[in-house]
Formats: sequence, C-alpha cells, structure tokens
Amino acid sequence: DRVEVFDTLGNPIVYAECKSAKKQAPTVLIYGHYDVQPALSIEDWKTDPFDTEIKGDYLYGRGTSDMKGQILAYIGAIEAILALGSFPVNIKLLLEGNEETDPEPLATFLRNNHELLACDVSLNCDAMLIGIDEPTIVYGLRGGTSCTIRVQGPSLGIHGGLFGGVIENPIQVLSRLIAGLTDEDGRVRIPNFYDKVRTMDVEERAELARLPLDEAYYLKISGSPASYVEFLPVERTGARPAINIHMFAGGGQKDGIPSEAKAGVSLLLVPDQVPDEAHEQFVTYVKNSLPATVTWEIEDYVGWKPSLVQRDSKGVKAISQALEIVWGVKPYYLLDGGSIPVVGLLQEIMGVESVLTGFSLPDDNIHGPNERIHLPTLNRGIAALIHFFFILAAELESASEGN
Amino acid sequence: DRVEVFDTLGNPIVYAECKSAKKQAPTVLIYGHYDVQPALSIEDWKTDPFDTEIKGDYLYGRGTSDMKGQILAYIGAIEAILALGSFPVNIKLLLEGNEETDPEPLATFLRNNHELLACDVSLNCDAMLIGIDEPTIVYGLRGGTSCTIRVQGPSLGIHGGLFGGVIENPIQVLSRLIAGLTDEDGRVRIPNFYDKVRTMDVEERAELARLPLDEAYYLKISGSPASYVEFLPVERTGARPAINIHMFAGGGQKDGIPSEAKAGVSLLLVPDQVPDEAHEQFVTYVKNSLPATVTWEIEDYVGWKPSLVQRDSKGVKAISQALEIVWGVKPYYLLDGGSIPVVGLLQEIMGVESVLTGFSLPDDNIHGPNERIHLPTLNRGIAALIHFFFILAAELESASEGN
Repeated sequence: DRVEVFDTLGNPIVYAECKSAKKQAPTVLIYGHYDVQPALSIEDWKTDPFDTEIKGDYLYGRGTSDMKGQILAYIGAIEAILALGSFPVNIKLLLEGNEETDPEPLATFLRNNHELLACDVSLNCDAMLIGIDEPTIVYGLRGGTSCTIRVQGPSLGIHGGLFGGVIENPIQVLSRLIAGLTDEDGRVRIPNFYDKVRTMDVEERAELARLPLDEAYYLKISGSPASYVEFLPVERTGARPAINIHMFAGGGQKDGIPSEAKAGVSLLLVPDQVPDEAHEQFVTYVKNSLPATVTWEIEDYVGWKPSLVQRDSKGVKAISQALEIVWGVKPYYLLDGGSIPVVGLLQEIMGVESVLTGFSLPDDNIHGPNERIHLPTLNRGIAALIHFFFILAAELESASEGN
Repeated sequence: DRVEVFDTLGNPIVYAECKSAKKQAPTVLIYGHYDVQPALSIEDWKTDPFDTEIKGDYLYGRGTSDMKGQILAYIGAIEAILALGSFPVNIKLLLEGNEETDPEPLATFLRNNHELLACDVSLNCDAMLIGIDEPTIVYGLRGGTSCTIRVQGPSLGIHGGLFGGVIENPIQVLSRLIAGLTDEDGRVRIPNFYDKVRTMDVEERAELARLPLDEAYYLKISGSPASYVEFLPVERTGARPAINIHMFAGGGQKDGIPSEAKAGVSLLLVPDQVPDEAHEQFVTYVKNSLPATVTWEIEDYVGWKPSLVQRDSKGVKAISQALEIVWGVKPYYLLDGGSIPVVGLLQEIMGVESVLTGFSLPDDNIHGPNERIHLPTLNRGIAALIHFFFILAAELESASEGN
C-alpha cells in the first residue's frame, strides 16, 4: 500500500494504491479531480464559495458536486470495505488537479506511467444522475475546443461621435461574426463542421427517448424562458455539436469606439469529430468572414476529444447492477453533453475503458454560483460503490476462470 | 462683476460675469464644461491621467483637450483684454459639470435662469480644428441617444457542455441583434430610421468636399486598417446617422452559458432626427427581433438633439474673421460628428445661436487614453478669441446703430 504525490506541468497528481488480499484480483483505477472552477459572480453566492455549509439535505460550496463530494464517496466506500475486512479488487486512486483547465499534465502523466497505472477498468464518478430516483450511466461525452478571438479596429479607443459611420467598431464586427456562426436553430454554419458527426441508429435513439429529459425539464433546470430544438434535447446535448460563446468583452467608455473586442469561443464536439480539425474549420471560417476593417488573432487554443464507452462491457454491467440494487430501478443510459478528458485519454493512451456514473444532480449548479450536492444521494452513491467493487470482482474473476 | 456657484441636480454650475464699460455693449455667453470622461484603460496611459505633464509641444492629461485647455483659452483671452483696459462686450461665463453624462442639470438651469443668462450670442470652444493650420468653424452637430440593453437567458450561469444546443446563450442572442442593426456598409436597418434625415444641397456638399478629410485621413487618425464608405467621410460623420455599440459584456466562466449579456447602444443622430423617436424605433426593432429564448430590458436611456447653426450669422462671421487674422487662411466649415448638448438647448430654450470653434486637434485622443492638447495651437486660439470679442462688438454695435 502506497501514497505518493507526483509533480506535473500543472498541479500535482495524488496517487494511492491498496492491494487486495486475493491473488490475481482485478485492478480498478479510480479517477477524480480536486481542482474546481473559479467562483465568479461572487454577488450571486448565498454562502462563502470556499467554505462549506449544510442547509437541509444539501452541502453548499464550490466543488461540492464537481467533484470533491464524489471523491468523498470513493473514500467512504473504501473505508467501509476496509472496516469489514479485505478489498475484493486492487485499488489505484488517481486525483489530478487540472481537469477544469488543461488536459496536458494528466495526458503526460498517463503516457509516462503505464505500468504504475495498469488496470482492468477505470471508475469515474465525475458524471451525474438525471434525477434523485433515476440512477444514470454515461456512455458518451462531448469533446470540445476553447479559444479566444481578439478583433482589433482603431489602434486606441476613439470618439464614437467623431468617427462613427467611417471607422467600424470591433464589437460590431465580432457580433456579426458570432451571429454568422449559427443559424436561428443553433445549427453551426461552419463549412464541413458536421461531416464526421456520428449518426445514431434507431435502437439508440429509442433508448435515449426513454430518458425523462424533455424540453420542460431543460427549461426548469436552467431557468430559461424557451429552448430551440431540432433533435430531442438529450440528443442535442449528447449527440449533436454546438457552439457556445462563453465570454464577450469590449468597450465601456460611453460613446467610444473601442480599439478591441474579444470573445471566448467553445466548440462542443461529439463522436467522431476531431478537435484540431474542428478548430481549423473555425479559423478558416473566421478568415473568410472578417472584413478588412479589423485585424484579428486567435489565442489560447485547447482541444479535447469526445468519447464513447461500450455499453455492454463488464464494468458497465457491474455498475448497472450496483445502481439497481441501491435505487431499486434500472439505470438510464445517457450521452452527456459535458467533457471528461480523462475518459478519452485512458482509451487512447492505455486502452482502458471507463465506467462513468456520478451522484451529482442536474440542479447542483456545477460551474455556477451556489454549487451544492444532495447528501442523501451521495450516501446512496457510497452504498452503490461498495456493491460495485464486489460485483465487478466476481464478474472479472469468473471471466478470468472461464479463460 | 460677480462670481457664483449654483447647485443643480448634478454637479454645480459655476457662473461669472464681467460688464463692459460701454453702455449698450452686446453680451456674450461663454460656455464651458469642467467635467471629463473617466480614464478607462489605465494600462494604455503613458502619464498619470489626473495629473498634467508637458512633453514637447503637448500637454497631457484627461480633460486637457476636452475641454479644460479651452477653458484656459477663455481665461487667457479675458485676462489679456482686462490687462489692457476695458472689455468691448459684456461677458457671462457659464461652466457646467455634466456635459459628458446628462444634459438635464444644464437644461433645468437654462429654463430657470433666462434673465441671468440673457445674451446676444453664445461662444463655445468645445469643438476642434481639423489640422494645425486649418482653423475650423462647426455649423452642425450630431445628437444621439444612449441606453443599455440587457438580455437574460438562464436564471443563473449554467454549464455550457450540459446545456449547449438546447438552452440558448444570451451573448449569442445579443450578438445576432447587434449584427442585425446594420448592414455591411454600416447602414442602419431600423425601420423608418432615415425618414427625418435632412438632405444636403449641392452647394453644401461642395463646401464639405473642400475639407481635406478623406478616407486616408480618418484611417491615419484612428489607426484603423480600413474604413467603410457610402458618402464622403465628412458627410458620414456629420450628416449621416449611425449606430455605435460602445460596450458589450457577458460571461467569462470558461465553458459556461452566462445568465445575462448586456450592450451599450448609442444612436448617432443628425438634423432633423428626434432622439425620443429614434429610441422608440430602436426599442420596437428589439421587440420584433429578439427570440423567445430570452427576456430583455432597456435602461439608462438618455437622448440629446442634433443641432445646426446659421453659417451667415454675425457671430459666425466674427469668429471667421478672427481665425483668418491669426491663422492667415480662410477657415473651413464643418459638420461635426460629436455632440455638444448645450448648442441645441440654447437654441430651444433661449433662442440663442452659438458660435462653435475650438483649439483641439483630431489626434488629441479626447475620451481615449493619452488625451493631450497642442500648446502652440492653444496660444493661437487665445489670440483669435481676443480678436473675436472686438470684431463682434464692432459688428453688433454697427448693426444696432443701423436699427
């Protein structure tokens, strides 16, 4: 048994392992991240984001749901099993600190530590369940890209009255660019953008349609007045790409024409889109769209792959049984709109499949103000994880005996 | 002789008067404002914006050109005349503190103080000359409106991956709205917006075409890579309306969909457009354009009228002769793209015409970082003002004798 901290290009990685008493027990690599999003919009928080506070059934604070609460679920399950006796599987626990910002430190660590991290399956609870009584297994994740585009007009801010009508405003140029990126239904207008989007078959669409996540659900969770829908909402978040402008900033001087405007552009990608290709398509679109009245540059590009997990793997079957024992209902299978870079990296670098579930709820407001986690659900999660380790051990051992 | 400070709804107004020794001397109301724009983009300033520093022929600091330097020119001219003897005209000096923010305090003061401010003509040096050797008289000014539009989507910031494609992003909605406000040539697409725009006759367009303010000039002054031109540049800034988005702000959380985006919208209006009408047209356009995916509100509306001065009035003739004596060339007549609310207010409330000139240069960067004034030009201005008072006194007295 061992605990070690590894330096990386980013924040350090915490690694711990605990061997099973059984010889030839299978090995589970448990993944978590201890980094969190910043707590912007401080004025919207009702508690201190960097302290914790329990109100009713909820624990509030930045990271409670994404995903320090879920790390506590791992630890709770492991402690419970160790208190009773020996572990049915070998455990390798990997906690990274750059999930929200940069996949490179983890990718480099995985590439350099194949042997240390060797495992049969990875357990990852950085996903969510769709409702308190609706346990959920995620079998696909969107990838994405992120970059900043800066558009520069005049060399310094100038007077709007004196120049307006002759010198174009970079805010307006950037607004036209952003407006042109999508049509009114949100469909992306970048040429060739949809070429590699994986198509779903009838069975998969039927399975997704079973999810109780209709338009009304999305409106309630988001507090938005209306949505815009081409496919089913669950298909639009999980199986269709989109563009999200996560930031726009320019000007501020009343009656001024600013020198510069900038926007944060996220491409939300699905299997089998390739981040570098999609980013190149975006850059080409920008090059062909922006007028001669401005200069521009694109910076801070980062991309991460979408991923898809086999729904009939032994790991997925084990978590499905474990969730059903605790919740008493069959779990749903979901394509998640979010990104968990480690899932694609483990597939690509180590050939390891992930089992993806989680005990966050959609209204936990991860990445937003007043993030929280539902404590009764977290406790059910601990119970499900205890079952998962025993069921997986039995399944993998019988499979190995069968060889 | 008298000095007094008057409270207003905004900053106080400073008033001073100095009577001529001559009976029945005409009265000149000298207008100035002591308020300045904020010094945003502090990192772009090379000197402390709220201190002054002389470098070469220039005095640097916020307000040096708009318009504390020009107030010094008034005072320099008045002191020089008083040092020699008596004043040829009665002087009333009015310095206000809300020119950059809100025309209401001054408008109220004018409405309540007809008798105090009674005058034959108003002198206003809050304009500029188009080049060091090109004295300029402004005979028209744009008016305008300003407001903030807020567009709200989800009730709080939400996760872009989980909701992108179903819940629309208010930044993207607002970008589409802004993009739709103008066509690629900058022409405003708000219905009926051009209905009341005054047309110029052939003589006026020829006079304006004489101004050495071509496209290359505007690009040099602004540092922009290219302009977009339908009319002559001088017509586009002075005789054609435009829209300027002076601010755009939304989001910032990477991969988030923000709850809200907002933009600062300025309509730049020309004679005979009416600010309240143009604003209503804008609001109607917004109402008809924004989708059901967001709610919106418009706040902080303020409007000010465009104005036009008679080019053949006695005051304009006097300043024209004074400028020609000092500079040695005939002045240019310009329609200025900026706004000086007092000009319209004096016409409307008191029936008083303004004489508009100034000793700012187009590259003084008023409202921007590193604002400055050219000291040799300021000194020529002082000399021209001294001539102006004597020429005007002679013209108005001979006119009055002729009656």
